[in-house]
Order: sequence, then structure tokens, then C-alpha cells
Amino acid sequence: MGWRRPNGEIWSWDRMVGDSTIQDVAVVGTGVVGRSWIYVFARAGCRTRVYDRDRAQVSRALGWLEKELPRDREAGLRERVSAHGDLAGAVRGAAYVQESGPEDLSVKHAVFVELERVAVPSAILASSTSALDMTEIAAGLASAGRCVVAHPVNPPHVVPVVEVLGGERTDPDVVERARVFLASVGQRPVVVRRYVRGFLLNRLQAALVREALSLVERGVADVDAVDAVIHEGLGLRWALMGPFGVGNTNADGGIREYLTRYGAAFTALMNDLGETPAITPDLIERVGRETDAAYRAAPADFASWRDRLITKIRELKAEQPRPR
Amino acid sequence: MGWRRPNGEIWSWDRMVGDSTIQDVAVVGTGVVGRSWIYVFARAGCRTRVYDRDRAQVSRALGWLEKELPRDREAGLRERVSAHGDLAGAVRGAAYVQESGPEDLSVKHAVFVELERVAVPSAILASSTSALDMTEIAAGLASAGRCVVAHPVNPPHVVPVVEVLGGERTDPDVVERARVFLASVGQRPVVVRRYVRGFLLNRLQAALVREALSLVERGVADVDAVDAVIHEGLGLRWALMGPFGVGNTNADGGIREYLTRYGAAFTALMNDLGETPAITPDLIERVGRETDAAYRAAPADFASWRDRLITKIRELKAEQPRPR
Repeated sequence: MGWRRPNGEIWSWDRMVGDSTIQDVAVVGTGVVGRSWIYVFARAGCRTRVYDRDRAQVSRALGWLEKELPRDREAGLRERVSAHGDLAGAVRGAAYVQESGPEDLSVKHAVFVELERVAVPSAILASSTSALDMTEIAAGLASAGRCVVAHPVNPPHVVPVVEVLGGERTDPDVVERARVFLASVGQRPVVVRRYVRGFLLNRLQAALVREALSLVERGVADVDAVDAVIHEGLGLRWALMGPFGVGNTNADGGIREYLTRYGAAFTALMNDLGETPAITPDLIERVGRETDAAYRAAPADFASWRDRLITKIRELKAEQPRPR
Repeated sequence: MGWRRPNGEIWSWDRMVGDSTIQDVAVVGTGVVGRSWIYVFARAGCRTRVYDRDRAQVSRALGWLEKELPRDREAGLRERVSAHGDLAGAVRGAAYVQESGPEDLSVKHAVFVELERVAVPSAILASSTSALDMTEIAAGLASAGRCVVAHPVNPPHVVPVVEVLGGERTDPDVVERARVFLASVGQRPVVVRRYVRGFLLNRLQAALVREALSLVERGVADVDAVDAVIHEGLGLRWALMGPFGVGNTNADGGIREYLTRYGAAFTALMNDLGETPAITPDLIERVGRETDAAYRAAPADFASWRDRLITKIRELKAEQPRPR
């Protein structure tokens, strides 16, 4: 099975899975993130075993999966997915478990205590948490060594990046095995060396949001102007390269010349950036009104447009890969 | 004339110019930014008159233009471009002048003094400056009212956003006419209400760069990981929507619900962001080494790949416009 690119070539997920020996996966928690993980793993050819405390949630997730599947290219995907009535049954035989439950330390800790008991001893136990520290989730567990964070962007079947990081007691080899496995299913894992609040992704996002909010709060520009600077400017580059890659292309001598030549100007600018604005009801209402004016359609319509176009941009990048 | 989209439809630049009455334009300064402006204006059907103190620079710019022109879709473009041996000759009859000289206040001020003398009184005098304040560039000029900043992203014939802002004495009507004209030639003007260091674009960029540098400097992750979080994650969204649009799609109730629900968590994260790191030779060398590893090809190859793919992404967005 595979994914047909616009140029007719088949992008084989099976071949990618061949890079990792992991074929059996469990998805625990089937909300918006969990259901998307089911798609990721099953699309890549993994047998994907599914559990949620809330059985109705599982039905909704599988219903979503049926609807989301493009019939012509995902033949067999649905057959690789099985729902299970208890955690032990779902996790049985899985070499990799992806937990995507509520963002609550005590809930996640309890799930990991249970996972330790029912998973095979060699299984990797991964959490989708966007904020919690694996040191705390796995506190007191005998098998903290095999517990990692694997934080995706929502939804992971559309956006490939996954932040991978261990807690203090996580075995580095487990981080590496998780990285190899996630790459094998078509994601783009990045390794975070140690826990920091917000990991990489939400810190980088918060940095942009802080300055954006500050500019609107101080009346320098409206929401439409600030957003257009991104989606008709900087964001077009950032879909292709990160800030270091962009700096590298902004001087003939690459990033060293760029930082040397503009370092002082950039430092002055960085030191001039806005403070964190107070997110008051007044600011929320002003931002809300200006956002309504800039984005008239319903948020859900924008979300599905976004997912459709991101998939197209990824196909474009696969067809015309970056220079080597 | 027009631009053939992949679906066969002709995107007519002529029709867009119809929105503004401006047909005659002068480009003063023909470096990397100026030459790209020539392309923008001539592509849109404007008669484009070109001047540079350095005549060899003009020849290089026109040579670049010949090379850059896709023969099949820009017929007639080259005929609309004329080179002139003196500033007065170039500016004669132009209703809009785009200055793209060196980023030096005294140089720009001198050019504007001269432009005031030779341009027709109704002409808009715009500067591509990325950092200078039009209040200072136009200091002492009788016609400061018609002087505006029109700061593009490099290169403007690929990336559409242009920041438009006046100095203290600029006539608001001139800002509006510049905005309408720039939209009519296919750019995406955004109005900045008052001068702030770095305007919007370089402030937003610096906010991301600061946190990216800080994460690498503190050893939380390497350049490849930080950049991948952008180009395989956040940047895929930001090519389509700015931070407010992204927040708006991250909660069913839109941006108000998003800011209300996550406001406290976001505030804590924003307050935890890194300080401006010292851009020392050591840090430059470390970033340089890690960037070399992440981007192996030459910067120029990445730049042309970037421009090719940004054009494709813009075509994609034109074919599948955002919901209304």
C-alpha cells in the first residue's frame, strides 16, 4: 500500500516501516489527537490496537477514520485497526504504545502505572503530552527507562513534526528507538535534549504570539496586518526552512556571515521586543473582533482548508525536495 | 498579459492594475531588491523607468530580468522597462517612485531631497527601507506629505507582503494610495500605524530568532531540531494563516475561546521565554557548524529552491483560496 503522489509515484509507507522492526502499536486515548495517531500508524502498515476508557469515543474515532480515509489510496488500512474493550487487551503484543489522554499529571501517571503492568517489558511507552515532564509522569515506575514524550502537532496525520524527549530516568536508547520508529511511519521526529516548559514547539509559537499580541495591544497594527506579514511573508519561507535555514540563505556566505554582519542590529531589535501583554477581557474582545474581520468563515472551515493545503504543500516538498 | 496558473486559468496582472490609476513607475536603485521591484511593476503592466547611480548595476539588473523572465508568460514585460542615465529622466512622468538604495539615512535623505526636486508634485515617493524612519528620511522636505515607506520581503516578485507606513508628516491619503497601488500590482500591502524599530516583519522574525538562538545556546536542542519544528510543523500552518488565524482554528469557539482557555498557560510560557543571547564568535561558530550539517547544499541553491517553491505555494493558495 502507499500514497500516490501527484506525479504518479507511489510513496510506500510499508518500505518506511521496514526501517524499524516495530509492527504492532497500541493507541490509548482516542480523542482528536489519538484518532489521528491511529491513522498515522495504520497508514504506515502497523497493526494498530485501540483503547479508550470511553467506548463511545472509540466509536467516534473509528467513524472519523472511515470518513477521513481516501478510499483509493488507503486500501487495507482499516483492516489493520482493532478496537479493544480493555487496556490489557489493546496493549498485548504492542512494541510501541502511544498515550493521548487528558493533559492531567495524575491521570497520565495512573495510565502509565497501568501500562507498565500490562505492556510487554520491551515496549516503548510514549505520551502525546504537550506540557508535562516525563520525569513526573513516570515517577516511581520501575520501567521509567522506557517512557518517553512523543508530542505531535495536531493533527499528526497532516503535520509531521513530533517532539521526542525522555525524563531524567529514560534510557537514551529508548529515545533513539522512538525516533527511528516515528521516522519510519512518515513523521518528522526531533529530539529535545531535556525538559523545558513548552518544549521547542510551544516556546517558538509563544515567542511569535507574544510579539503579535504586543503589536496589536499597543496599536501598532491590526490583526489582519500582523497575520498577513506571516501568511504572505515570513510563513512562506518557514514552510520550507526554519529560522537558521532562512538566515543561511540571506547572505552569500551563509549563516556565519549573516550573524556576523547583522548580529548587532538583530541584538538591538531582540532587546526592543515587547513584554508579555496582559490577556485581559478587553484585549480578548478586541483581538476577537479584528480576527472575525480577518477570518470571516467558521473556524472549522479554516481548519479543514488548512489540513487540505498542508497536505498539498507536503506533496510539493516531496516532489521538489530541498537541494542536497 | 498574465500569469498562467497550473489549472490553465490566466491570472491577469493588467486587470489588477485597473484598480489603481497609476501606470508609470520609477525604480531608483537596482540592487537585489530594486531589480525585483522592476519585475513586479512591469509584470503588472506598468511602464517602469529605471535609474541607478551605478550604470553597471542597471545592466546587471536588466540582465537578471532577462534571465528570470519565463518567456511563455511575460511577453511584453521587457518592453515596458526603460533605463535612464539621470534621475530626472527616470522619474519624469512617474506617479509612483520606489527607492531601493543603501540602508543609510544620509544617503536616503539626499536621494529624497533630489526626488522632491525632479518628481511631478503628485508622485508618491516610496522607500524600500527595512529599518529607517520616514520622519527622518523626509526631515526638512517640503513634500514630506507624499513620502512613505514600502518595505518588501526579499525578493518582492516572489514574496508578496509589503509594509506601508508614513512618517509623522505623511498625508494619510498617500499611505492609502500607496496601499491601493501595491495591491493592484499583486503585492499584499499591510499598513503599520506608526514607526517602531523593525516595523512588524523584522520584529516578528526577531521574536522567533531570539527563542531559536536561545534554545540552541542553552543546549536544549540543535539547529536541525529547532528548524524542523518550524518547516515540518508550525511553518506549514503559518504559510496559510498568521498566529491569530492559527489560534482561531485551535478552538471550536475561535480565538476568544482559545485565549480565554489557554491565556494563563500561554502567559506563563511567554514569561518563561529566553533572554536575548549574546551573539559571540563561539555561538556563531556553533550555529554555523550545526547549520552546515542541517543544510548541506550552497545557500544560493537553497535560495532558488525557496523562490521556486514559494511561487508554487502561492499558486496553490490562489487555486484553493481560504474559506469566506
